[in-house]
Amino acid sequence: MFFHRQELQHAAKPDKPDAVYARKLQEVLGGQYGEITVAMQYGFQSWNAHLPGKYRDLLYGIGAEEMGHVEMLATMIAQLLEKAPLGVTEGAMQDDPAVAAIIGGTDPQHAIVAGAGARPVDSNGNPWTADYVTASGNLLADFTANANAEMQGRLQVARLYHMTDDAGVRDLLSFLLARDTMHQNQWIAAARELREEGVEDLPVPSTFPLGKEDREASYQYLNFSDGQAASEGSWASGRTPDGKGEFEYVAEPPAGVPAPPPTKPDVRLHGTTGMPGPVEKAMGTAQDALHKE
Amino acid sequence: MFFHRQELQHAAKPDKPDAVYARKLQEVLGGQYGEITVAMQYGFQSWNAHLPGKYRDLLYGIGAEEMGHVEMLATMIAQLLEKAPLGVTEGAMQDDPAVAAIIGGTDPQHAIVAGAGARPVDSNGNPWTADYVTASGNLLADFTANANAEMQGRLQVARLYHMTDDAGVRDLLSFLLARDTMHQNQWIAAARELREEGVEDLPVPSTFPLGKEDREASYQYLNFSDGQAASEGSWASGRTPDGKGEFEYVAEPPAGVPAPPPTKPDVRLHGTTGMPGPVEKAMGTAQDALHKE
Amino acid sequence: MFFHRQELQHAAKPDKPDAVYARKLQEVLGGQYGEITVAMQYGFQSWNAHLPGKYRDLLYGIGAEEMGHVEMLATMIAQLLEKAPLGVTEGAMQDDPAVAAIIGGTDPQHAIVAGAGARPVDSNGNPWTADYVTASGNLLADFTANANAEMQGRLQVARLYHMTDDAGVRDLLSFLLARDTMHQNQWIAAARELREEGVEDLPVPSTFPLGKEDREASYQYLNFSDGQAASEGSWASGRTPDGKGEFEYVAEPPAGVPAPPPTKPDVRLHGTTGMPGPVEKAMGTAQDALHKE
Amino acid sequence: MFFHRQELQHAAKPDKPDAVYARKLQEVLGGQYGEITVAMQYGFQSWNAHLPGKYRDLLYGIGAEEMGHVEMLATMIAQLLEKAPLGVTEGAMQDDPAVAAIIGGTDPQHAIVAGAGARPVDSNGNPWTADYVTASGNLLADFTANANAEMQGRLQVARLYHMTDDAGVRDLLSFLLARDTMHQNQWIAAARELREEGVEDLPVPSTFPLGKEDREASYQYLNFSDGQAASEGSWASGRTPDGKGEFEYVAEPPAGVPAPPPTKPDVRLHGTTGMPGPVEKAMGTAQDALHKE
Amino acid sequence: MFFHRQELQHAAKPDKPDAVYARKLQEVLGGQYGEITVAMQYGFQSWNAHLPGKYRDLLYGIGAEEMGHVEMLATMIAQLLEKAPLGVTEGAMQDDPAVAAIIGGTDPQHAIVAGAGARPVDSNGNPWTADYVTASGNLLADFTANANAEMQGRLQVARLYHMTDDAGVRDLLSFLLARDTMHQNQWIAAARELREEGVEDLPVPSTFPLGKEDREASYQYLNFSDGQAASEGSWASGRTPDGKGEFEYVAEPPAGVPAPPPTKPDVRLHGTTGMPGPVEKAMGTAQDALHKE
Amino acid sequence: MFFHRQELQHAAKPDKPDAVYARKLQEVLGGQYGEITVAMQYGFQSWNAHLPGKYRDLLYGIGAEEMGHVEMLATMIAQLLEKAPLGVTEGAMQDDPAVAAIIGGTDPQHAIVAGAGARPVDSNGNPWTADYVTASGNLLADFTANANAEMQGRLQVARLYHMTDDAGVRDLLSFLLARDTMHQNQWIAAARELREEGVEDLPVPSTFPLGKEDREASYQYLNFSDGQAASEGSWASGRTPDGKGEFEYVAEPPAGVPAPPPTKPDVRLHGTTGMPGPVEKAMGTAQDALHKE
Repeated sequence: MFFHRQELQHAAKPDKPDAVYARKLQEVLGGQYGEITVAMQYGFQSWNAHLPGKYRDLLYGIGAEEMGHVEMLATMIAQLLEKAPLGVTEGAMQDDPAVAAIIGGTDPQHAIVAGAGARPVDSNGNPWTADYVTASGNLLADFTANANAEMQGRLQVARLYHMTDDAGVRDLLSFLLARDTMHQNQWIAAARELREEGVEDLPVPSTFPLGKEDREASYQYLNFSDGQAASEGSWASGRTPDGKGEFEYVAEPPAGVPAPPPTKPDVRLHGTTGMPGPVEKAMGTAQDALHKE
Repeated sequence: MFFHRQELQHAAKPDKPDAVYARKLQEVLGGQYGEITVAMQYGFQSWNAHLPGKYRDLLYGIGAEEMGHVEMLATMIAQLLEKAPLGVTEGAMQDDPAVAAIIGGTDPQHAIVAGAGARPVDSNGNPWTADYVTASGNLLADFTANANAEMQGRLQVARLYHMTDDAGVRDLLSFLLARDTMHQNQWIAAARELREEGVEDLPVPSTFPLGKEDREASYQYLNFSDGQAASEGSWASGRTPDGKGEFEYVAEPPAGVPAPPPTKPDVRLHGTTGMPGPVEKAMGTAQDALHKE
Repeated sequence: MFFHRQELQHAAKPDKPDAVYARKLQEVLGGQYGEITVAMQYGFQSWNAHLPGKYRDLLYGIGAEEMGHVEMLATMIAQLLEKAPLGVTEGAMQDDPAVAAIIGGTDPQHAIVAGAGARPVDSNGNPWTADYVTASGNLLADFTANANAEMQGRLQVARLYHMTDDAGVRDLLSFLLARDTMHQNQWIAAARELREEGVEDLPVPSTFPLGKEDREASYQYLNFSDGQAASEGSWASGRTPDGKGEFEYVAEPPAGVPAPPPTKPDVRLHGTTGMPGPVEKAMGTAQDALHKE
Repeated sequence: MFFHRQELQHAAKPDKPDAVYARKLQEVLGGQYGEITVAMQYGFQSWNAHLPGKYRDLLYGIGAEEMGHVEMLATMIAQLLEKAPLGVTEGAMQDDPAVAAIIGGTDPQHAIVAGAGARPVDSNGNPWTADYVTASGNLLADFTANANAEMQGRLQVARLYHMTDDAGVRDLLSFLLARDTMHQNQWIAAARELREEGVEDLPVPSTFPLGKEDREASYQYLNFSDGQAASEGSWASGRTPDGKGEFEYVAEPPAGVPAPPPTKPDVRLHGTTGMPGPVEKAMGTAQDALHKE
Repeated sequence: MFFHRQELQHAAKPDKPDAVYARKLQEVLGGQYGEITVAMQYGFQSWNAHLPGKYRDLLYGIGAEEMGHVEMLATMIAQLLEKAPLGVTEGAMQDDPAVAAIIGGTDPQHAIVAGAGARPVDSNGNPWTADYVTASGNLLADFTANANAEMQGRLQVARLYHMTDDAGVRDLLSFLLARDTMHQNQWIAAARELREEGVEDLPVPSTFPLGKEDREASYQYLNFSDGQAASEGSWASGRTPDGKGEFEYVAEPPAGVPAPPPTKPDVRLHGTTGMPGPVEKAMGTAQDALHKE
Repeated sequence: MFFHRQELQHAAKPDKPDAVYARKLQEVLGGQYGEITVAMQYGFQSWNAHLPGKYRDLLYGIGAEEMGHVEMLATMIAQLLEKAPLGVTEGAMQDDPAVAAIIGGTDPQHAIVAGAGARPVDSNGNPWTADYVTASGNLLADFTANANAEMQGRLQVARLYHMTDDAGVRDLLSFLLARDTMHQNQWIAAARELREEGVEDLPVPSTFPLGKEDREASYQYLNFSDGQAASEGSWASGRTPDGKGEFEYVAEPPAGVPAPPPTKPDVRLHGTTGMPGPVEKAMGTAQDALHKE
């Protein structure tokens, strides 16, 4: 169950409206790595978790916080939009390019669809989609997904920080940056703990019997490009991070195998299967059958 | 530039057709973590890379391999579909539930749209979308995204391995499992190397001045759920993975701040802004202006 | 701020697993009118609300409840999936059509992607999208949208009720049906109250000056089909629900106006603008300019 | 069958081109509540209708009108785009910010993709999607959806009216506002008539036996937020609009029930199911089976 | 303007219901090349047309017919769904695999969402999207798109013909096949006429001055794969279809040019730009600036 | 297998950065007819091809070239973005409208998401989707799709050519224009060769027995609009391009057939099926059954 309290975790009040910036801020609300994504992602991971205890509590605890971040950003965006100009005609634009430029930089749906309200979309107006969510049931994979989400998220907030000089907005962003710092650290710690406790290990999924994979290809760097610098990396020689092999650099990928012959599906699918020559001949009896059917 | 060779990296030939399994295999071809995703993801990361050398060569080298995996899976799927039944009427289903069941488990677009060919979609027929791609320009974030993609990908291949007993299919999957093992290890090694060389560090982005974030909130576990087990984890006390702080467990989130007052945008957006009472009064002069405009 | 409590609002425990039904139940979790939709819809309406007090509190109060419904359904679906078969080969299907039929009726991503977990998708596996959300800032319009959402939602739950005989599932559905009954009544009452208090009125938006619309066309039923039965309805004569006019039935739509002549945009857009005859002639000087540019 | 007549229902001719406004006007052509949505929505409702007569004739009659509105708006947009500037280089922008501002406010696909033509997209360039359509087969639910669509649509047209001073555009908008006024009234009248005739009733679907829903929860306002103002509304006490109960205000939601224990699906799905301790032990025999399989 | 007549262009009545087939038939109603696509495509091409007369009349005339085809298919699908089973529990499935198989082969949204009605989706339940529409303003390009759409459409109808033995369904399909035959021929004829009249020519757009393209590369077959059979085709030697050059076969693509050096964007975007070595050094003054900002 | 070489097929270096143009250029990288589309389209067509030899080699040879075009455009876009301004506040905009106008014309995700890198999206920021891909297994249909794709693609490049005066950009575009000229010619030649060799013929699919289509309707122009100019075209009289019939102009479509009666599905779907009158009566026994169930 979720309970709502009519407070915000941190102040979310701009010094002044800025409809152009409001559009940009949508990215960390409704974009691929925005707050809706992490709120839903941690939610589904917790509801699908297969073991009770600290890992699931971690997901529950942070998931609800992220719903509050959705609210803080929506509140901030609505205020940034409070004085949004409604738009001007093209004629008027030529008289006042400054206003025209502002109009050009705003999201038209903020005014037309939401009446100066926040929307569940990214900075290009793409609606949020569950395509962004990862919840596999394997916690080592999912915590790595979560670490990535917090890295991408903090990176975007940092970029947004440089795009405004509004002290109120920056105050909120500095708080979000700190929470993303925490969450990056936490998911990395949690992933490490899964391995230290022997609950999960590399390669994911560690419960799949290694004997069933093609072990000869398990630690080879196969270079399908013509640069050689990748041979200098720690992924080209030495012990592998899963502790189960040695990296090997293969400058030239081994020869492949011949592709199997093309398929010949049912003639009633009307694919192009005939060899050069009249189609009647190529199809023969099958074609006759078509006519009788 | 890309060059194509008419060979496959590994054999991709099923022992026998299986249209139901073909649908499932689409997941690792055209799904969120399928081969199209990693091919495009490593491609865009390499084309946008800001520094030449080993990291970019790594992206180039693996990116092209993944395009070959797209081809291997497409080839496999086309063969699995080679004898796909065209479908039967509902009446016929009642006579032969076995065939009916097969039809029910297939992707109808495999026959109707592709004529027994592979498609750039997932196992539910959702078209592949670039929403799945991550390429931020920050390599530590992106290599973490890549490690996750390979984990999710290998997890899905492992699950698919248990869903067939076709030796030819399993032979291909055992090869793909091995390559995913390699790629998991490689991205983890590469992310570690970025940190060891001082090119990037935690928290991402490490070039953002920490003094500008709200450091008091940077290492606090704020528990927005009512379970307490998360306090036992390594994310609740001790040194943080970024080496810059100490985790702190906060069982009860601090009190929030009052939400700002609701916004009052331009009356011409016709939002509901009036207090209870006749709307004419609430709107006053603004409303008059509407009429004159 | 949102707080999570590790309880469910109502029991959500099936008598036995049923992976086929789990797929169907996804509709009311992640479909167009599923619980994610109403949770997000009421959330955005509340964060964008322009007036404090009872209407906003109503949105806050129900919005948080709906997040708990998301959780209940996800929990139920995970249990329905607990014994989901992993799939069988097409060969095996012919031996046991019953198992084959079950496989055919399941969502393959439940197993491959989520490892027997719930997903933020509908019963066809389409990912949830913010395209489903409505939040305009005008409460009379939005409460009507909410009433519709609860009607469609209850209708779908009712249909799902007849598709199972599992007592545990039906117990949860009977609770959800009741809550949807409440929410239908509540939004209808709230919409009525907006009008009775004079905060909003019909037609929406009531703050737009009626004198600026083409009042001659405001209450005419224009029949663009050739049936005449619509003339018998209460929308064809009598007082209009907005209390501002009389319905009029117009059996034959008035003659239209000639369409404006086709546009002739810039030749550099290379549209087909020439009249029959050599293109060089038709383009004349403009074409010359193209060559010089 | 549909027949086309080469006339428009109303004049659709701007006084002068305005490519920036053309982009905005796309919202009511190809957006969530644009004319394509209502044309398709009324169409599918009519084709799926289960009873002949006045309700279906109403859907037929208005559905065809809306297709004509699609045409009027497309015609208007093409004319607004007739003199659209092709774009300038960034250098040129600095010389003439007025032109630059116009370019910035236009939809680049209007020029690049459509050659100064209208497109089936919204004001942010999102392609129209059938996600916007509602057609459930239950007329009371669907007519409520239709009333909402006409409210949202008229609201957006009203906002757009204030964003231009072009008399030709405003003339068309004043006609569309009038038609939306009619359609709002009509769907409200039709929904009321369904109830008065006893064809449908509240709660939707009224044919579901109320005895099968959890009637104790059917009329309770459960407040999951901490504001109390919602208790003042007509949804918190008194007779319910469906005439079958009394609203009850519950300031504190009842205690929930414990969540069921986490699921333990098949080990071959490789979810994280082991308790802390070596994974081999946790998995036991099941794990052995994996190796043998 | 569009007018609706309550008749169908051709009979659309199945001999008996078949919910499994109904799902498949959705492909040609709401799929990539279904009737909604051509109705909308010809509509937008006509509304955006730049010249009056026979070409535009052709688009008007066929566009309206296609809307009628949408209606015929929707009507047919609703009848095929008339006796759709509501679904059975997994337990029941084991008793009656025939019914279970039917359930597995149906679209669950047909029952849950539409109450046994047609939907604007394809055979996998993907909602129709305007991504399928092409309308560029260049008639030679667009008529080629139309010819392709009619080819793909007729191909799909032909495949569907073999998937049923219902005489009523086949009767409708034989009519649709005939209309697609007509429309293929017509668009090919119209494209040819555009060229013969000199209104358009190859290569599209013919109004772009050829002197501005890199003519050395205009007729070369560059073989980026390692097969040589393509050298035997009419695209490898001889006069080109545009009548302006000679095909040339180039077995080995010419050497490329070195890629430009990686970009170094603003440090405030926090991309990975530093060479190996401490990031402080690499960033130097820029980094200092970050701290001061 | 695909191999990457660290060179570009043609120079891709702008004279100077231009972030506004970078956004526009995304159209031909990640739009409906951008390079990702053709690379994937030719790839899937080749992998699904049913006959070896020249046609498949053609697909392989061009498909790999297009992947290189994706790379060239991504490289170009990254350079155009190299000096992209980060954005300014609304206040600053009023001081420098020129900079403001530039910001307004850029894609905000270029900076926030990609850190000045190219993205797999179109010029409106819509993510690339496999909805754009056509691969049916019928080569005559697919080559027509390919011809269209190259026409639309060259048209868009031509339009983009006029939107910049950067010599470096124009140099790349003149190369792409030439390659599109080649590819248009090649697909047209290949489609013609399929017919000349008797492998495929019109109407597609030519292997479907014509006797099974409704031949009376195969060559009739049915005019569903009220213009008569289409009667003048070569599609209204004379031999049809498939060589199998004569066009016939039908100014008035033949009368239709009555629509079948509305469907009456299972009452448990709760559609509106009752005639006016109390619902209890209309439903009768069925309704009773609902209560007992």
